[in-house]
Order: sequence, then structure tokens, then C-alpha cells
Amino acid sequence: MLIIPILALMISVVILGGGNVATHLFKALNKSKESSVIQWYNRDLDRIKPYANTVPITDDLNLLVQADVYILAVNDDAIAKLSSELPFEDRLVVHTSGSVSIYDLDKKHKRGVLYPLQSFSKDSKIDFANVPICIETVDKKSYPLLKTLAVSMGSPTKRINSDQRKVLHLAAVFVNNFTNQLYRIGHEITESEGAEFDLLKPLILETAKKIQDISPFQAQTGPAKRNDKKTIKKHLKILENKQHQDIYELLTQSIQNTHGR
Amino acid sequence: MLIIPILALMISVVILGGGNVATHLFKALNKSKESSVIQWYNRDLDRIKPYANTVPITDDLNLLVQADVYILAVNDDAIAKLSSELPFEDRLVVHTSGSVSIYDLDKKHKRGVLYPLQSFSKDSKIDFANVPICIETVDKKSYPLLKTLAVSMGSPTKRINSDQRKVLHLAAVFVNNFTNQLYRIGHEITESEGAEFDLLKPLILETAKKIQDISPFQAQTGPAKRNDKKTIKKHLKILENKQHQDIYELLTQSIQNTHGR
Ligand SMILES: NC(=O)c1ccc[n+]([C@@H]2O[C@H](COP(=O)([O-])OP(=O)(O)OC[C@H]3O[C@@H](n4cnc5c(N)ncnc54)[C@H](OP(=O)(O)O)[C@@H]3O)[C@@H](O)[C@H]2O)c1
Ligand SMILES: NC(=O)c1ccc[n+]([C@@H]2O[C@H](COP(=O)([O-])OP(=O)(O)OC[C@H]3O[C@@H](n4cnc5c(N)ncnc54)[C@H](OP(=O)(O)O)[C@@H]3O)[C@@H](O)[C@H]2O)c1
Repeated sequence: MLIIPILALMISVVILGGGNVATHLFKALNKSKESSVIQWYNRDLDRIKPYANTVPITDDLNLLVQADVYILAVNDDAIAKLSSELPFEDRLVVHTSGSVSIYDLDKKHKRGVLYPLQSFSKDSKIDFANVPICIETVDKKSYPLLKTLAVSMGSPTKRINSDQRKVLHLAAVFVNNFTNQLYRIGHEITESEGAEFDLLKPLILETAKKIQDISPFQAQTGPAKRNDKKTIKKHLKILENKQHQDIYELLTQSIQNTHGR
Repeated sequence: MLIIPILALMISVVILGGGNVATHLFKALNKSKESSVIQWYNRDLDRIKPYANTVPITDDLNLLVQADVYILAVNDDAIAKLSSELPFEDRLVVHTSGSVSIYDLDKKHKRGVLYPLQSFSKDSKIDFANVPICIETVDKKSYPLLKTLAVSMGSPTKRINSDQRKVLHLAAVFVNNFTNQLYRIGHEITESEGAEFDLLKPLILETAKKIQDISPFQAQTGPAKRNDKKTIKKHLKILENKQHQDIYELLTQSIQNTHGR
């Protein structure tokens, strides 16, 4: 019997980079039936060697094979140079950054961006159903393939423009990095009195869950919104760290501006 | 056949107040097998009338029955006065506030606090397994009963002192109210370019989930932690609102102080 593999409809992918995003993308694309990672490049081969049984790996750009799309999941600063070093042209090359311009990719390529709006770290498991993929392309023709690729990982997708990607990345800093710093301050404040930060964890989760259904505007409560001056004064007195006081005052003002106090 | 109800071991409770906390406490205590709400008071009877089939209700302090514990789930400002108006003494009376002193309760009572460290709103369902109850008492003897009561709702409990309750309440403002305002700013920033806030919701949830297992210190990522000056500058340029710029700068500095930049 002759077995003819039906690969014609599969999207072939080469991944470049061996970090967090590259590794999670590899795993998600490798599972998908509509796409196939046919090669994985990293300048440091050791980092991707654990996967050498599963996929051809290389550290030599001159050995890159032909593919439908090349995903550059490397440091923001490395994207421009790496894209210009690729020894081919007129193929679809995308990066995964929220903040790098699509035009930083060498113009000899068809250019695109697959920006996964999620926080990746090496050890944590990621379900791509919870990773919205924001898609941008220079020419319209490249869009359907990138959309199919994202959908093949089970991700929600959204076509966006450069300005939208910029503000999404900026907003992500507010809701991820800055929010996490507020958790950190909560940690410092509680531990200063020997209280347990663990007690705050259910509240932190509930706060994030609440805005899945109602807007942050509707969800707001607390002394700032109520303009409860007595409590605000008490709180500022407890805070010993000047910077924590400044953050308390600034965010209290921000809430009061939002809610017309 | 004679049926003798075994009520001896049940903790009898009178709830005072008809708002968010009172209503959620009523439902949780009413379900529990170790406690029984034997009366519900509110100054405005209409608010608790929907429950009149389930529990005796009253708006007259002089008609309050004898109980093991009286829970004052009323506005912070009303606690002191209401406790002094109670027409009895030497019984266990507690409030549910994070910020009101235990000594604001009239000293004719045995005094305590049951502070539920969660954000309640009328319509949302609350699983008391996700509501840590922080317990404080003036005299030690009152503690076991309050602990049993909290456990009977399925809540984790923690014995704390006044200073710890103060900092927990303050930390709750940071991780709940202030975090929610960062979500709000994320909302404003994205919508300013017609991008969808919805795209940020999985990231918001992931950010809260991450610190259930690792510390906020370990969880931090992003341009501030990396001291990525180019991205920070770009972001400040995109922000049109001066207050948002101030918040960006202050929280960036705070992250950099935490991570020794
Ligand atoms: N992490 C996230 O949560 C996240 C989310 C959305 C988007 N992104 C974007 O995804 C991209 C990758 O981020 P990441 O978190 O995966 O970074 P990462 O874990 O630090 O990995 C970066 C990878 O880039 C490689 N690299 C760095 N400089 C290079 C160069 N000059 N030439 C070739 N390769 C180079 C590194 O190679 P070595 O292995 O040899 O060091 C490494 O494998 C970035 O554009 C980032 O903005 C990240
Ligand atoms: N909401 C939360 O997320 C939360 C979390 C932890 C702790 N707490 C604490 O729980 C307590 C109750 O908060 P809540 O959110 O349930 O408030 P709420 O929904 O505003 O309800 C307050 C209740 O107090 C009653 N009340 C107000 N002034 C009164 C007075 N002078 N005499 C008698 N009753 C009076 C009100 O009566 P009417 O019905 O007649 O207006 C109302 O039923 C507060 O100490 C609060 O700090 C709240």
C-alpha cells in the first residue's frame, strides 16, 4: 500500500529563537493539525537540543529550509538585524513583539507580526485559548495564512494596525507589570506587620475575575471612590515608605478623576 | 414519636445590617449546619423583606432576641453608635470592618471583629471558601466561637491583631481598588485607538493567577524591570494624559527600586 501524506494544506513554519515565546509557540504549533514546524533555529544550539528528537534544529542561517512562514521570536533589539541576515527574500517573515515596528523587518521580505498578548515564562503551562494573537501584515495577502496559523493553535485572533499594537503593548504594561508591582507593595505592607500576604490572594483573583464580566469603571469600590477622607488619611499615615504614599495619593486622585469627585 | 432537635451545639447568630456583607453572610450562615441565623435586623425593613420567609426579621432593636453572637455588618460610621444602642450587655458583639477599631464597639459588650477579606457586591455569587475571615477579639475566650462560626461557612480563618487588620485593609486597597484602576487605564488607552479592551482580559487573569504560586517579586517582567529605556521613552510619548504619564513613571521607578536598578 502506498501512503501519500496530505501535507499540501499544512502551513510549514520555521521558528527562529530559543526563548520563552519560541518554545511555547513550538509546542502549540507542533500539536496543531493545520501547521507543522519543519525547522527550529537558534544561535545557541544547546538551548533547543532537548527538542532535537522532535524537529530538525540548526544554528546556521544558511541551512534554513523553505517554509510558508518564518517566525522571529527573538529579543526586540535583534529582530531588524536577524531579518536582514536571512539568506532569502520575498518569503513571509514575522516577528512576535508588541513594541517593534513591522517596518523594522527587512523590506526584502513579506512582512508581518504575530503578537501574542499574554505573559510567557519558561516553566508555566500556557493554553493558547487564553492567548489572543494580534495580527498585522504589510500586504493584505499575507493575512489569511497568519490567521489560519493562529487559529490552528486554538487562539482567538484579531487583526490590528500598528497604532493599536502600540497601545495594546502599553496597556499590557499597566495591567500586567504595574498591577504585579501593586501586588508586590501589598506583600511588603502586610509582611511589615507579620500579616500573611496569602490572605490577599483570593481577593486578587476575584478582582481580576470581576472585570471579565463588568467594566473596570463599574467594578470600582473603596475609599477613593467614596471619597472617604478619614480612611484615606489613616492609610497615608500607616504607610512608612514615601514612594508607597505617592502611589497611594496618585492612584486615589486617578480614581477620583475617573469617578468625577 | 418525639423528635428532639439537637440545637445545643449550634451557634445562634443575629445579623444587623441589610447591605452586601450582611446578605452574603446571611446566605452562608443559613446554609451551614453548625450555625443558625435566628434573627435579622435592619433599620429599613423593606431591604430584608425578601428573606422574611426564611428568617424572623425586625427593625426594632428592642425586639432583638438572645443569641451567641451579634454581627454588625453596617457602614463603618454607624458601628459605634449602633453598638451602644443595643439594649443588652455582656454578650458577644462583632463588626465586619477592615478599618474600624475593635474599641469603637461599646465596652459594655464582649467585643470582636470578623473581617472578611474579599470584595462583596450585591449580585455576584460568593463562595466563602474564597473569603479568608480575619478574626480579632478583645478577650481570648470569645475567639473559639468566632473561629467555629467562620469555619462553618467553609472559610479559611486567621487570628490577627489590630495592626495586622489595618495593614491588610490597606494592602487590599492596593491590590483591589488600585489594581482595578490600572485595568481602567488599560481600558482608556486601548479604546483611544479603537483597540479592544477584551484582548487584555486573559492577560489580566493570568497576572492574578501567577502570584497564587510564585511571589510578585519573582513574577515581575517588562521594560521597567529590564530597564529598557527605549521602550519606556516610547510609552511615555504615546500617553496623552498627564496623570497616566505620572502613574507610568512612578510605578516604573517603584519596580526599579524593588529590583535594584
Ligand atoms: N515573554 C513574553 O511574555 C512575551 C510576550 C509577547 C511577546 N514577546 C516578544 O517575543 C519576543 C521573544 O521574547 P522572549 O520572551 O521569548 O525572549 P527570551 O526568552 O529572552 O528569548 C530570546 C531569544 O532570542 C535570541 N536572541 C537574542 N539576541 C539574538 C540575536 N542577536 N540573534 C539571534 N537570536 C537572538 C536568544 O538567543 P539565545 O538563546 O542564544 O540567548 C533567545 O533564544 C520578543 O520580541 C518579545 O517582545 C514576549
Ligand atoms: N463590601 C465589601 O466588599 C466589604 C468587605 C469587607 C468588609 N466590609 C465591611 O462590612 C460592613 C458593611 O459593608 P457593606 O458593603 O455591606 O455596606 P452596604 O452594602 O452599604 O450596607 C450597609 C448597611 O448598613 C446599614 N446602616 C447604615 N447606617 C446605619 C445606621 N446608622 N444604623 C443602622 N444601620 C445602618 C444600611 O442600612 P439601610 O439598608 O437602611 O441603608 C445598610 O443595610 C462595613 O463595615 C464594611 O467596611 C465590606
